[in-house]
Amino acid sequence: MASALRILFAFVAIGSCIAADNIDLWPMPMSVSHGTQKLYVKKDIAMSMVGSMYSDEKAILKDAFQRMVNLITTNHVVDGINRSSLVLTCVNIVVHSPEDELNFGVDESYNLTVPTTGDPLYAQIEAQTVFGALHALQTFGQLCYFDFTSRLIELNSAPWIITDAPRFPYRGLLIDTARHYLPVRIIKGVIDAMTYSKLNVLHWHIVDEQSFPIEIPSYPKLWNGSYSYSERYTVSDAIDIVRYGEKRGVNVLAEIDVPGHAHSWGVGYPSLWPSDSCREPLDISNNFTFEVIDGILSGDFSKVFKFKFVHLGGDEVNTSCWTTTPHIEGWLNNNHMNVSDAYRDFVLRSQKIAISHGYDIVNWEETFDSFGDKLDRKTVVHTWLGEDVAPKVVAAGLRCIVSNQDKWYLDHLDASWEGFYMNEPLKGINDTKQQQLVIGGEKLFLTNPLTLHWLEERLWTPTEKLAKDPQSVTSRLARFRCLLNQRGIAAAPLAGYGRASPSEPGPCVRQ
Amino acid sequence: MASALRILFAFVAIGSCIAADNIDLWPMPMSVSHGTQKLYVKKDIAMSMVGSMYSDEKAILKDAFQRMVNLITTNHVVDGINRSSLVLTCVNIVVHSPEDELNFGVDESYNLTVPTTGDPLYAQIEAQTVFGALHALQTFGQLCYFDFTSRLIELNSAPWIITDAPRFPYRGLLIDTARHYLPVRIIKGVIDAMTYSKLNVLHWHIVDEQSFPIEIPSYPKLWNGSYSYSERYTVSDAIDIVRYGEKRGVNVLAEIDVPGHAHSWGVGYPSLWPSDSCREPLDISNNFTFEVIDGILSGDFSKVFKFKFVHLGGDEVNTSCWTTTPHIEGWLNNNHMNVSDAYRDFVLRSQKIAISHGYDIVNWEETFDSFGDKLDRKTVVHTWLGEDVAPKVVAAGLRCIVSNQDKWYLDHLDASWEGFYMNEPLKGINDTKQQQLVIGGEKLFLTNPLTLHWLEERLWTPTEKLAKDPQSVTSRLARFRCLLNQRGIAAAPLAGYGRASPSEPGPCVRQ
Repeated sequence: MASALRILFAFVAIGSCIAADNIDLWPMPMSVSHGTQKLYVKKDIAMSMVGSMYSDEKAILKDAFQRMVNLITTNHVVDGINRSSLVLTCVNIVVHSPEDELNFGVDESYNLTVPTTGDPLYAQIEAQTVFGALHALQTFGQLCYFDFTSRLIELNSAPWIITDAPRFPYRGLLIDTARHYLPVRIIKGVIDAMTYSKLNVLHWHIVDEQSFPIEIPSYPKLWNGSYSYSERYTVSDAIDIVRYGEKRGVNVLAEIDVPGHAHSWGVGYPSLWPSDSCREPLDISNNFTFEVIDGILSGDFSKVFKFKFVHLGGDEVNTSCWTTTPHIEGWLNNNHMNVSDAYRDFVLRSQKIAISHGYDIVNWEETFDSFGDKLDRKTVVHTWLGEDVAPKVVAAGLRCIVSNQDKWYLDHLDASWEGFYMNEPLKGINDTKQQQLVIGGEKLFLTNPLTLHWLEERLWTPTEKLAKDPQSVTSRLARFRCLLNQRGIAAAPLAGYGRASPSEPGPCVRQ
Repeated sequence: MASALRILFAFVAIGSCIAADNIDLWPMPMSVSHGTQKLYVKKDIAMSMVGSMYSDEKAILKDAFQRMVNLITTNHVVDGINRSSLVLTCVNIVVHSPEDELNFGVDESYNLTVPTTGDPLYAQIEAQTVFGALHALQTFGQLCYFDFTSRLIELNSAPWIITDAPRFPYRGLLIDTARHYLPVRIIKGVIDAMTYSKLNVLHWHIVDEQSFPIEIPSYPKLWNGSYSYSERYTVSDAIDIVRYGEKRGVNVLAEIDVPGHAHSWGVGYPSLWPSDSCREPLDISNNFTFEVIDGILSGDFSKVFKFKFVHLGGDEVNTSCWTTTPHIEGWLNNNHMNVSDAYRDFVLRSQKIAISHGYDIVNWEETFDSFGDKLDRKTVVHTWLGEDVAPKVVAAGLRCIVSNQDKWYLDHLDASWEGFYMNEPLKGINDTKQQQLVIGGEKLFLTNPLTLHWLEERLWTPTEKLAKDPQSVTSRLARFRCLLNQRGIAAAPLAGYGRASPSEPGPCVRQ
């Protein structure tokens, strides 16, 4: 029996989703200290809010707590605790702010303590806002695991004292519903998965050249640009998705990518095309073009998308249709513009419209590369081409979101997780003030994320806590990936690229 | 507006999950007739059981009905019906048998009628057993779809009169939790997905050479052969999975693959190995080997796995360890056996044990190829190597399950869906009596099915209704795949192999 026990413990170190000798939290918190005591978590562990200024009228915390309890049982039948041992019976959550508006830059910090003394024995979460408390619940959930010998939910290495806050206020994931339609159910699953990695912005690249799936009541024919009758989102669907995210601390950044990625707009309104034979970019000479943009951003978007920012795209604009279409060429001449002026003019007019409806703007980096000095100061430049752009953006005093495609495009199946992990948004930016202008980063998923694969840490964890050598986080990362699988998320094995299937039989942590 | 409407209707034909001019049901029922009338489905459509002999004490129907309603809303916000139109307010389910034991060969037939007259207007399901009624609810769910113009759930082409019954009583899917552990949550998701294709047997290849994840109380150290401390199933987990399946009309076929695929057994009990240096197959000379098999099948399995069959494997037995291990070689000589005799002896002894505990046996085809005439008559031979074996098996009067690897191994990523579709279990079997000995077929998934991809029809639909040319079902299959995606299942695109991502942007039905 002794030998059997040794084998058992050997396995603990290798394979369990939390190992006694490690801090198996992902992403790694700002500050962690722990002991060596094992606690048991009561099956029907309760939540209390003693001392909280927050009423939780929308049940944001209540529901999040229940989701966390469902996760830590990982669908196992948990036996009752029939022994005298240290049992965690409650989590008390103290939220100082009564507000629960998910504004950009909202305080997401939290303290989590799991003591080994006290009767009753309870964990304590303290946070400025409900959204910090949500992160604390995710961390608490990662401390708990089902033990196959005791049949109980255990919490190792107590007491825990964790102080945590995000490195960047913007931690994004892009989904593209224009190239491939994603059902509402899938998008909600993506949002849930984001919360496990403490990501907080779903960048919804809604429409593009290929399709226009979302309903715009003020211009209903735009919907004719959807791929099909069923590959669509109603306004109610969009509201449903935004609320779903807000309840989980995830904002939705809506994007309409103009003028270059808007071919689908003309299916319902052909006058938005330069001509029937030349259909992109949108017709700059036609006021109707800007009426439609105004209609989208005012009448419709502003009711649905409450996030501070709207993304106006502005990338990959091929202006040849403007010069080869007589009525637009005439307009350019009358206005003494060349195509570069026109491109700038289009982007700036669109910015003004968005600003007039209360939005700050995000634009892809080409707008900065072409006329950075003219961009509205409210512009956040979204880099995607190279890693050398961010330093120029912040040097120019503009804010920046980093998404260089060589490392953070999740549909580049040949991108390794090591490169993904080591990609540093502040690379080449040494001035502290300029560093603060990098509001965060974003992973891009332009293909169908039915298989998800991202394991975010760099945007949350303080620099000094990030691994210098990615190999040193392999085992912790592998265990987090196994945890995601347990939760039903198809996070791919570390051992292969992209959606490759495991090369051979093996345990989750290796395969 | 007229032109816009035409565009809209064009899209209906291309992309909606049900097209007015087609019967978009998968698998295709035995007999279908329909009209041209559009109905609306009440958001809170009710279920009644007027005239039913079945009490539904376990809420099998009640829960299935609720799941179906959740599916047909596909997470969209459904508006109320504010017009005078034909509204389906109820589904009345008449089940004739009060029994709900999911025995092999249970009557799964059903009739489904959706009339266009009556006040209240209600659909009628009639089935011999509750399990037929479950299939009827799946079919009904495929008739309903969310309409993006009316914001309502619509049901096209009424009245419908559908009579349906499965072609084969055994319609299986194999999952392998030994080569790669699958969390309980994932297995339950697989079961749900199976019901959409009317599959009814989950073949759980639980243990193998690489790992022994399931708890065996009578021989607890077997569990030491699990990959890790956390990659395990308790008895409660197994019961949970079996009950989950039974409630959905899916039986669980448990497999222990002896003697060849049992290396992991010896981690906890090394005496099951021929020697420390030569570890497979199980030691035939050791009575303890058969005590353990008996313990598994009696004390433990028979309490959990209530299905008529147990799978004893018997494939790929390399007997070299038996001849190179002195004490086994001695035993062979004393018993005047060569290794072929010994292999047969092992399989037949294991069969007797299983039969003594009330099971019929399934064995892989090698057992038949080697000593088919000696196999117990209760044996079902499971073919996997080639398509020429099934005819021999039934000619010998034994039952057969067909799974030839070239077509039905889902982890062969180069297997095309056309080959998958056209694979005919009765190929080369012309005698009617012999055909009846083919109880069905099975798809094998030996890798990690975090990405699912199977679209079963051949095992359900009568031969005369099956397409002769797979291309003729492409659009119906593509729409079913889109429906699966809507339901959160990662069914891969038809264009492309295995887990390949879509090659280019495009609508669901094409990409």
